[in-house]
Amino acid sequence: MSDLIEARVLKGFRDFLPEAEIERRLLTETLEKTFRSFGFVPIDTPALEYAEILLGKGGGETEKQVYRFQDHGGRDVALRFDLTVPFARFMAEHRSELTLPFKRYHIAKVWRGENTQRGRYREFTQCDFDIVGTESAASDFEILLMMRESLRAIGVGDITIRMSHRGVFNRFLTRLGLSGKSVEILRTVDKLTKIGRDETLSLLSEIAGRPHGEEILSFIEPKETFEATLATMTAAAGGTCPETERLGTLRAFMNDMGVADVFVLDPSITRGLDYYTGVVYETFLNELPEIGSVCSGGRYDDLASLYSKDRLPGVGASIGLDRLIAALEALSRTNRTPGFARVAVACVDETFGGRYQSIAATFRAAGVSCEVLTEPKKLVQQYALAEKKGARWVLVAGREELENGRMIMREIATRENKENMSLEEAVALAVAGLVR
Amino acid sequence: MSDLIEARVLKGFRDFLPEAEIERRLLTETLEKTFRSFGFVPIDTPALEYAEILLGKGGGETEKQVYRFQDHGGRDVALRFDLTVPFARFMAEHRSELTLPFKRYHIAKVWRGENTQRGRYREFTQCDFDIVGTESAASDFEILLMMRESLRAIGVGDITIRMSHRGVFNRFLTRLGLSGKSVEILRTVDKLTKIGRDETLSLLSEIAGRPHGEEILSFIEPKETFEATLATMTAAAGGTCPETERLGTLRAFMNDMGVADVFVLDPSITRGLDYYTGVVYETFLNELPEIGSVCSGGRYDDLASLYSKDRLPGVGASIGLDRLIAALEALSRTNRTPGFARVAVACVDETFGGRYQSIAATFRAAGVSCEVLTEPKKLVQQYALAEKKGARWVLVAGREELENGRMIMREIATRENKENMSLEEAVALAVAGLVR
Repeated sequence: MSDLIEARVLKGFRDFLPEAEIERRLLTETLEKTFRSFGFVPIDTPALEYAEILLGKGGGETEKQVYRFQDHGGRDVALRFDLTVPFARFMAEHRSELTLPFKRYHIAKVWRGENTQRGRYREFTQCDFDIVGTESAASDFEILLMMRESLRAIGVGDITIRMSHRGVFNRFLTRLGLSGKSVEILRTVDKLTKIGRDETLSLLSEIAGRPHGEEILSFIEPKETFEATLATMTAAAGGTCPETERLGTLRAFMNDMGVADVFVLDPSITRGLDYYTGVVYETFLNELPEIGSVCSGGRYDDLASLYSKDRLPGVGASIGLDRLIAALEALSRTNRTPGFARVAVACVDETFGGRYQSIAATFRAAGVSCEVLTEPKKLVQQYALAEKKGARWVLVAGREELENGRMIMREIATRENKENMSLEEAVALAVAGLVR
Repeated sequence: MSDLIEARVLKGFRDFLPEAEIERRLLTETLEKTFRSFGFVPIDTPALEYAEILLGKGGGETEKQVYRFQDHGGRDVALRFDLTVPFARFMAEHRSELTLPFKRYHIAKVWRGENTQRGRYREFTQCDFDIVGTESAASDFEILLMMRESLRAIGVGDITIRMSHRGVFNRFLTRLGLSGKSVEILRTVDKLTKIGRDETLSLLSEIAGRPHGEEILSFIEPKETFEATLATMTAAAGGTCPETERLGTLRAFMNDMGVADVFVLDPSITRGLDYYTGVVYETFLNELPEIGSVCSGGRYDDLASLYSKDRLPGVGASIGLDRLIAALEALSRTNRTPGFARVAVACVDETFGGRYQSIAATFRAAGVSCEVLTEPKKLVQQYALAEKKGARWVLVAGREELENGRMIMREIATRENKENMSLEEAVALAVAGLVR
């Protein structure tokens, strides 16, 4: 048997067995339903693109992680590592075919050759939604609401969305004469929750001197209320400015809609990525804050600047499906089901394969998923098989029952047989069971 | 502007804009719903695998088309080119975790560096469904039924499924002493519809001599009825054998279920791939037979023999989504919709961003997709935008209407305004519109 090839997947890649895949599909279906209810539409882009398109002028951490190679035609190609860069290219290419503002979602796999030792996967699913072609506060607010509604729809509604505004931070640093050091400072601030207050202060003091370090630390610490934090931020920015006004408008929208509780103004939220220029946000589960943000995003000035001279502002967010599922598992809130069939038709006699499928078709037409068992094993074995597959009922009919039109419905959990049922009665029983 | 990177996709790859992507998603959702109604469950496997796993001992046409490269760790990897090979590897790896017979579906992208001049794509979607771990006629029949039901569900129910049995062909060739030439002969027979009767005969005569050529041609030509063809096949096989009995059993199942009309026994159907050993089938649209088979498959003796010494028989089929969509387009039977929102809330006054989302939330809670327009443009422009997005109604409410709780619902098609509506009335109107 040394000729056999070992069946294994690449490190960092995963098979999804039915239970896990059903869970993933039901989750993404719920997310899609939510996105669609807001009028968002799906797009899709190729998994493989010109490396130049995905990596731009290149360099940096991203490039090292990208799956990049030469195709048969000698083209330098790469697998997408996120859904934002392909979306930017998509907008530059198809802008004239679309109506702006354009609200799209994209749920798809992305690939990164990350270090798997930190529990990272090399293939994972992202769920992105964006509104492009608008600078309105209404679009910022809509994305914030969708984050809340999406998580609520999948059963983790107890969340805090921590948000800030990159523009206010920039004004503050400019006022301190530190705009040249903003990258370093933002990177340090981003670590606050991880390294703690004292360590952050010490690092900031190294970069900007102790007085400025203290001022920055005082700026990024949230106050008692959204309004108090906004007042501090406004002072730090040197007074009211369009950026603080935007935060005020969003707060008014939250109050008008009665959703203010969910949002915390937290100036330490900066999002590492350079392209954010406006509001930025991260979402934490109140029951499990330690797993980090499950949905993050922000506003950007110009999505497609690498590919087009037409300016394209927008706002969006991304849900990391894998982290979300890890969270649901940690909260024991997964909804694992082995299968879809509610009724299994037993194989009492192999010669009735056509009749059994006719019976199953009647259940299916009534909206009841129905599996036909294919092996004429002992009934107890067929009951056990049906149970493993998650069915609730087994319909049993041999020659006599088929001739009489009187069949047996066995309820697996109770081991109770309902006998002498017509097909109509059996279907009615299963349909009633759907709503229970 | 010479610094800009040209926004373009690789040859053979495609972006899907919303209309096209919505169509694709609704189609795959319908297929999934059908698969689930038969009790089939989804799995997923990595896009990228060890090249050795995907290509086996290698060689042949496939290898030339595969996207294959070295990853960061120097591993020889490749993108999957179909869903069958990963499924075989999956079964070898996870067999002990699954209950047999195992019924799975897998809808996913695959990649082949094919010659794009023949209108082929290099990235396309396959929809596979298989039952493994059983040799029963019931499982053969179930796959045949699912092919029929799947196509019916997406609106192309007028089909012919042409089927045969590879084992009968093998017996026939063995009887003629031609089993050593079976690959050549099967390849020639496969071309019958393309090159015609005479050319096929001349090629077969070259391979096997004129008398055998004529005998083969007479064998592969379907007769008047399923039964007559089966009789010819039985004679050609040297009498009744398990393979002809299997065809007879399947015919009985078809008759019992009243679906016999759809199936034609056609011994010229062989399916090129070597791994089929039992029934094989192809599906043609009666209205558009020239586009070729939209759903094909068959029974195999041993799925995972490259990776495991445990024998795993099964039966399955694959729907090519792209060819199916091309067919729907040719038949003008596509169901193109620009979006999901049925109601758009106009942006009369930007300060009411929170109130507009509250209104939209009421529609959404009632099951009506509702988009909030974000730009305070002239109402005629907002009506035009809502129309482009496929909405039926625009809800219009300025300060006065919000204070009174009396709003305007404009029906886009009729340009009719219904005024003085409470939110409840507006929602009821839209809900009633859903079922119309």
